Amino acid sequence: MQPGENSPVLGDIGEQGLLKLLHQFCAPGLVGDDAACLELKDWDGKSLVVTTDVLVDGVHFSEKTTSPEDAGWRAAAANLSDLAAMGASAIAIVVGLGLKSNTPVSWVERLYQGMTACLEEYDTAIAGGDVVRSPVITIAITAFGRVDQERTIRRGAAKPGDAIVVTGYHGASRAGLELLLHPEWAQSLSQSNLSQSDRNFFIQAHQRPRPRLDVLPILQNLNSPNSPDSSNYSAIGIAGMDSSDGLADAIFQIARASGCGARIDRAKLPIPGALSQWVGVETALDWALYGGEDFELVLSLPPESAEELVKKLGSPAAIVGTITKDTGICLTDSTGAKSDRYLSLNKGFEHF
Amino acid sequence: MQPGENSPVLGDIGEQGLLKLLHQFCAPGLVGDDAACLELKDWDGKSLVVTTDVLVDGVHFSEKTTSPEDAGWRAAAANLSDLAAMGASAIAIVVGLGLKSNTPVSWVERLYQGMTACLEEYDTAIAGGDVVRSPVITIAITAFGRVDQERTIRRGAAKPGDAIVVTGYHGASRAGLELLLHPEWAQSLSQSNLSQSDRNFFIQAHQRPRPRLDVLPILQNLNSPNSPDSSNYSAIGIAGMDSSDGLADAIFQIARASGCGARIDRAKLPIPGALSQWVGVETALDWALYGGEDFELVLSLPPESAEELVKKLGSPAAIVGTITKDTGICLTDSTGAKSDRYLSLNKGFEHF
Repeated sequence: MQPGENSPVLGDIGEQGLLKLLHQFCAPGLVGDDAACLELKDWDGKSLVVTTDVLVDGVHFSEKTTSPEDAGWRAAAANLSDLAAMGASAIAIVVGLGLKSNTPVSWVERLYQGMTACLEEYDTAIAGGDVVRSPVITIAITAFGRVDQERTIRRGAAKPGDAIVVTGYHGASRAGLELLLHPEWAQSLSQSNLSQSDRNFFIQAHQRPRPRLDVLPILQNLNSPNSPDSSNYSAIGIAGMDSSDGLADAIFQIARASGCGARIDRAKLPIPGALSQWVGVETALDWALYGGEDFELVLSLPPESAEELVKKLGSPAAIVGTITKDTGICLTDSTGAKSDRYLSLNKGFEHF
Repeated sequence: MQPGENSPVLGDIGEQGLLKLLHQFCAPGLVGDDAACLELKDWDGKSLVVTTDVLVDGVHFSEKTTSPEDAGWRAAAANLSDLAAMGASAIAIVVGLGLKSNTPVSWVERLYQGMTACLEEYDTAIAGGDVVRSPVITIAITAFGRVDQERTIRRGAAKPGDAIVVTGYHGASRAGLELLLHPEWAQSLSQSNLSQSDRNFFIQAHQRPRPRLDVLPILQNLNSPNSPDSSNYSAIGIAGMDSSDGLADAIFQIARASGCGARIDRAKLPIPGALSQWVGVETALDWALYGGEDFELVLSLPPESAEELVKKLGSPAAIVGTITKDTGICLTDSTGAKSDRYLSLNKGFEHF
């Protein structure tokens, strides 16, 4: 809230007022009963995919770095990204909100505006939710989608020899967070080697991440290496997940679930050039591997399919390494400048 | 926590330890990926039904009245009750948890034990979830179920002349809550006219409410008044919801959504006799109408079908009134002891 702003708070409009307000954001015909009712047609051979995320004020977002619109966008995007990571298209989300009595009504409206802005881009509806009083603002989103059973992307399906594809930049979201946490850096930007447009790009990456649902139709149209004329997903064999908890974490999870390891070439990682110039290559690498919240897909698939995929996605998508029989995640350097080292998971985000 | 108990807290076992613990409660094969993937067979003509509830420590449950097991049971039961209110059978739930670093691990285990105890009775799985750090314990459950589209129970389908059926006792949950909030009453119970078994019945009603999914197969087998040989739900025409926010609230919501009113006969309301004896008929009536959390179904259907339903359900299920053309909810007394009065919704539970 800006000082002097005199917006009504939730205690003023009460539960009925709040529900009326929120219904404006929900799919017509879906809300107003005990539960949302979605007609699913042609369900044969498809699975329902469900994911849930809880975001807590002061833990996952804060007024300092996140406007209510951005908190809404990010909450929706994180859930859609989980659906994309399963190969699933989105059906709808439901939203559970814990709010304080003195939460400004405008805060809730702005949250929903950000959420629906994201959802509209991916043709996804809000199917309902719940609002309750809480001493700390809490956003609990559950998203559901559908996937052809044979096209489900799981973590445990990687095979030694597979190439590892990363669909976009890593490190940018963390860079944006750091810029938001340190507004005083803006003053010294003119002295630093970070341009205003790069700065905006990083902040946008943090505030408005884009779930990679757009990757799915490309995956569905990859040629099968075994039968080049058909586009048979399950014949190709794709494993993967999203990089919301960090690129290193994603590689670890895929490798572990598949009983394999991985060799990653640091020279191939899609790290924005402006980031390495700004904070140095080692910090940029650290942010790319462990920063998290880039919401890209990390996929494991046969090399020829990986090359086709990267070509179709275009830069900065890249093949960054291979799945190995040996367990352990080894960071190599194809330029020869650095010696090999094994990555650890210790730097991943620990919730407690 | 009991004083002197030295249980590990979440900060001790970390996120990975917590996830390992929670996975024991989840359906095998459904957790471990970005989202849960549920195979739905024979989907033709069915709808996905989704409902979500957020429960906050100190607002919706407290250590004083609710053990972690009971909090878990109640959270699961409330969601299953919403599915039952739509006419839907349960498929699964996902659980989002906000927990403090110093939350005892045993608290979380006991929560899940209560939750799974309820879910097992209704053959429902935990399909996944999310755990995050929060300054206040928060439980966000999303349940999904399936319903034949023509058997969906909506609030807005009541018609003037319909009978209003209530599937069980009202006021018992509120009575249990009051007993838990006032343990000092236990001492004076011997002087009061409340027996120990009635006391236990009320507390059980509050701590372990039972979602009325068992009513659905009975509804499905009602004879159609128009074609007595077929059991055609949509031909009968059933409206309804659950009474989680109070019996008066349910009647108001159904009437409002249907553009009708209702006449309720106070002499017909299924209020436990022991409750009226204990607190007097007026307080018992108040708790029955406005106490909430009895989690029964409130249904509107043609009189002959209503009679068949009540006969099949047995006591204390009852026809409590009729849907009227005139809007307004009128409380009458068929014994003639009290004059008619109109109910207001003001006494319903206000979240903010």
